[in-house]
Amino acid sequence: MTFIDKLRARWRDADSLLCVGLDPDPARFPDRFAGDGYADTAEALFAFCRDIADATARYACAFKPQIAYFAAHNGGEAALQRLIAHLNAAHPDIPVILDAKRGDIGSTAAQYAIEAFDRFGADAVTLNPYMGRDSAAPFLQRNDRGCIFLCHTSNPGARDFQELEVGGAPLYQHVARAIATGWNVDGNCALVVGATFPGELKVIRGIVGDMPLLIPGVGAQGGDVEAVVRNGATADGTGLMINSSRGILYASTGEDYAEAAAGAARQLRDEINRYR
Amino acid sequence: MTFIDKLRARWRDADSLLCVGLDPDPARFPDRFAGDGYADTAEALFAFCRDIADATARYACAFKPQIAYFAAHNGGEAALQRLIAHLNAAHPDIPVILDAKRGDIGSTAAQYAIEAFDRFGADAVTLNPYMGRDSAAPFLQRNDRGCIFLCHTSNPGARDFQELEVGGAPLYQHVARAIATGWNVDGNCALVVGATFPGELKVIRGIVGDMPLLIPGVGAQGGDVEAVVRNGATADGTGLMINSSRGILYASTGEDYAEAAAGAARQLRDEINRYR
Repeated sequence: MTFIDKLRARWRDADSLLCVGLDPDPARFPDRFAGDGYADTAEALFAFCRDIADATARYACAFKPQIAYFAAHNGGEAALQRLIAHLNAAHPDIPVILDAKRGDIGSTAAQYAIEAFDRFGADAVTLNPYMGRDSAAPFLQRNDRGCIFLCHTSNPGARDFQELEVGGAPLYQHVARAIATGWNVDGNCALVVGATFPGELKVIRGIVGDMPLLIPGVGAQGGDVEAVVRNGATADGTGLMINSSRGILYASTGEDYAEAAAGAARQLRDEINRYR
Repeated sequence: MTFIDKLRARWRDADSLLCVGLDPDPARFPDRFAGDGYADTAEALFAFCRDIADATARYACAFKPQIAYFAAHNGGEAALQRLIAHLNAAHPDIPVILDAKRGDIGSTAAQYAIEAFDRFGADAVTLNPYMGRDSAAPFLQRNDRGCIFLCHTSNPGARDFQELEVGGAPLYQHVARAIATGWNVDGNCALVVGATFPGELKVIRGIVGDMPLLIPGVGAQGGDVEAVVRNGATADGTGLMINSSRGILYASTGEDYAEAAAGAARQLRDEINRYR
């Protein structure tokens, strides 16, 4: 089953547009992960993310581990491999997006595609489009996997280059159009569009039809859920992977961290569903 | 010593603008690396790159390991750590650039900065500017390290977005100007400019003053050395890190691989120097 088919099935079966972001920061872990069983940071990265994922799975349309939070630690990649293997085994219906924002010339991009899809076993990967189509080709060719390109991001710096005007429209709209009309030959593309710019989200939805959009920026970054759903959802009330990381992961730093994460995930899923 | 100071000293002392790119592809290794001592691919990645680096060091102004070629393999990160530790110990005067093209929101970028500078111990890292200044800040703040931003890349896809016209000039010139005038507060920035577009290189040099430029694309990608030096060098005949990876790494696939690599490196260094 392709990433896109798996995602559409999950939207329907779980009645959820919530993507659970796994950005594990050991400094914010509950005390138990500093105990003797976790002398190794990598072990704690795995165990914390596993617990959060297992607790929130029923509310999730996707999981999104962010590779930087693993790559900052020795042994982090082995922890990430174990985590994705666990997700694929325990929650086989939930697609896993590796958030890595890769992008390089073709011969190097081919190595990054092996990293994301074969070594780590992700269903989809986030990519940076700045280097153009041939830099995306080794990912696009893996047509059972998803390629999720940065379009208009959730951070203040999105204004620096993404909003520069090109022929009467901002750059990010050109990116959206190029991907929707030129790169998405096998229907395996999606875009990253920040929740913090809901007006832009509406324009992008108009450009890309029913292409899935990954939406970071609700919660800690301040994006408004109602505006995201109203501006970004497709006519059938799907089309979105609305991500929350910190708001779920660190809902409690006590012994009830998993239960609190599940509560935060359920609450955000329900809030999203109110506006669909 | 900062990355920039180390680079300037090395340009002078080695009389070289050659950057040796370390993109190890086991399928192209000499037969000896398929032998019993290298049952583990990671061991071969380390040993092959070490041999190439030791053989070419006297001709190099910088080493540039490309992380994707390590990250495609289990144990690749440990091999990369060992390699950079070896480079720093055996060749302490030669700066090491981690080619990773990272770029993400600030909290995630902080983790990537730890990955590049602390875990791997690189002097500099390549970065993608698409997400804007706040995505670069955690790297820029490490002002002893170098931040080398993609500007105009060497691949055909450089035309897709980098050359879109913004207010009468292509996007990549806006990127160059923003970095030169706004981001380079601590003088630790550099740019990636492909050898395959020498006319553009001249324009960028005019925008950025004496900022160092990392130049991929000579050799396998077809860039012309004379045009690069004439268009890209600063008035004192430096300012460039002209990269060659495949042309050096795979100069021979026989038992003379290290000697052949040294010969290819010397030849390219000399060719560069003829035009300075």
